[in-house]
Parts: sequence; C-alpha cells; structure tokens
Amino acid sequence: MVNPEPDSKSRLRLWLRLLKTSRGIEATLRERLRVEFNSTLPRFDVMAALMRHEKGLRMSELSGVLKVSNGNVTGIIERLVEDDMVERVAVEGDRRATRVRLTRGGKMHFEKLASAHETWIDELLAGFAPEEADYLSAQLQAVEDQTEGSDT
Amino acid sequence: MVNPEPDSKSRLRLWLRLLKTSRGIEATLRERLRVEFNSTLPRFDVMAALMRHEKGLRMSELSGVLKVSNGNVTGIIERLVEDDMVERVAVEGDRRATRVRLTRGGKMHFEKLASAHETWIDELLAGFAPEEADYLSAQLQAVEDQTEGSDT
Repeated sequence: MVNPEPDSKSRLRLWLRLLKTSRGIEATLRERLRVEFNSTLPRFDVMAALMRHEKGLRMSELSGVLKVSNGNVTGIIERLVEDDMVERVAVEGDRRATRVRLTRGGKMHFEKLASAHETWIDELLAGFAPEEADYLSAQLQAVEDQTEGSDT
Repeated sequence: MVNPEPDSKSRLRLWLRLLKTSRGIEATLRERLRVEFNSTLPRFDVMAALMRHEKGLRMSELSGVLKVSNGNVTGIIERLVEDDMVERVAVEGDRRATRVRLTRGGKMHFEKLASAHETWIDELLAGFAPEEADYLSAQLQAVEDQTEGSDT
C-alpha cells in the first residue's frame, strides 16, 4: 500500500492548527478580560509578573521578565498605579531608583483575575484529560527547545 | 489517595506551553525566511493566499482572506510588484478595479519558500508521529470551535 501523503503534511496541518488555536484562545481571553474585568491581556501579564516577584521589580527588570518594550510597560504601570493596584517603593542604597510592586488590593484583584483565567482555560481545554495535557506539554517543550529564543 | 493538584493546573500548563511553543516556532520561521530567502512571514502569508487564488484577488478580498489591515497588505503587495512576484490585472466589466495575482516567477519563488517552510516544520515537529499529529489537530480543532472569532 502506498502512503497517500508524506508525514510532513500531518505536521504542517498540526502547525497551522496550533497557530490558529492559540490565537483563538488568546482572543477569547482578551475578550473575557475586557467584558468581565474591564482589563487587558498585557495588564494581566504585568500583574502576573509582579505576583511572582513579591518584593517588586525595577522597571528594567520587569521589561526583561516580560520580554516586551519598556514603553508599553511604562504606560501599563502608570495606569495600575492610578488604580492603586501597584505602588512604587524606594530601592535601598540608591536614592534615585524605585521598584514597582503590587499593593495589597492589587494582589487581591489579581487573584480574582487569575482564578477566572484558570477556569476559562480549564473549560476551553476540557477535551484534554490531565495526563494527555501533561504528555502534550512535554512534547511541546521538546519542540520549544529547538526554536529561536528558547531561554535566551 | 488524594489528587495532588486540580486538573485545571495541567490544562493551564498546557496553555502556557502552547503559547510559548507557537511563538517560538513563529520566531524560527521568521528568522529562517529572513536569512535564507530575505523574506518575511507577512510576505509569505500574502503569497500563500495568492497561490490559493490563481485568478487573483481584489485588494479588499485579499485583506479579507488574510484578516489583516489593508494598509499592511498594500505595502507588501507594492514590494511584490516591484520584485515582479505579483502583477495587477484588470477586472472585466469594471475599468477602475484591478486584481493582484502571482506572476509565473512569483509562483516558482513561492513554491521554493513553501517547500522550505514545510521542511522546517517537519523537522521542528518531528517528535510527533503523523497519527499523533492528526489526532492532536482534531483535538485542537474542537478547542478552536469554542473560541472567539472561530470562522467569523
């Protein structure tokens, strides 16, 4: 029996599907953050980064963690400060430097966002059993290790 | 035995992995198109769309197919026309309208790009057996059907 098509076609279809699905999920998250929390995905990402660094980060460190341009992050932080979600704190030993960190209210708000985000993902990916999800995560990790910018 | 963590954690990890991997693959494709063909991903996408519509497309139709802003597409098409990859042809019965389509040289060039692209993806996703890739594509399709903008 002759193979009707090369294996590369299955992988090409998988790639196009990965791309479309991840864009679709992102659009869904963006829409729900907007409608349910009047928030945005970049704002969510900034808060998530600050949540992982309880003592706060200098702006340059925050940009590094997020791998986005400093300009965008600055605007997001300014809004978060206005909204009392983030505060600026002095850096010991450097009078001109400040770090930004989540306020108590910011942490509480982010916990609600993160919980909703986890629930949305759980619903969207409900078709994947946990073992299947773990297996696939490992497979994708192996792909990622070969790609540009992997941990650089 | 108590489950050490809720199923939602596996799905959340899968989502973060899907996102990182698809960004990593995109970055890799972008870099290789640049280095090996002095080309870009948007240019590749425009040529792929024209390849699927041999008779050509009006600019508005092309933008619709690509789901990107008309402004970007216009610039890409102008460069492709300069490079003799794309030509403008009259629309019968509408003297002011034109369609754009790949030239013979444009088709030949795109075939090289597409072949290289398929090989790169085949290498990057070599960890997925074809059956596994097909299964996963179907799973992801089911996710996509629940997301924002699915087929709109």
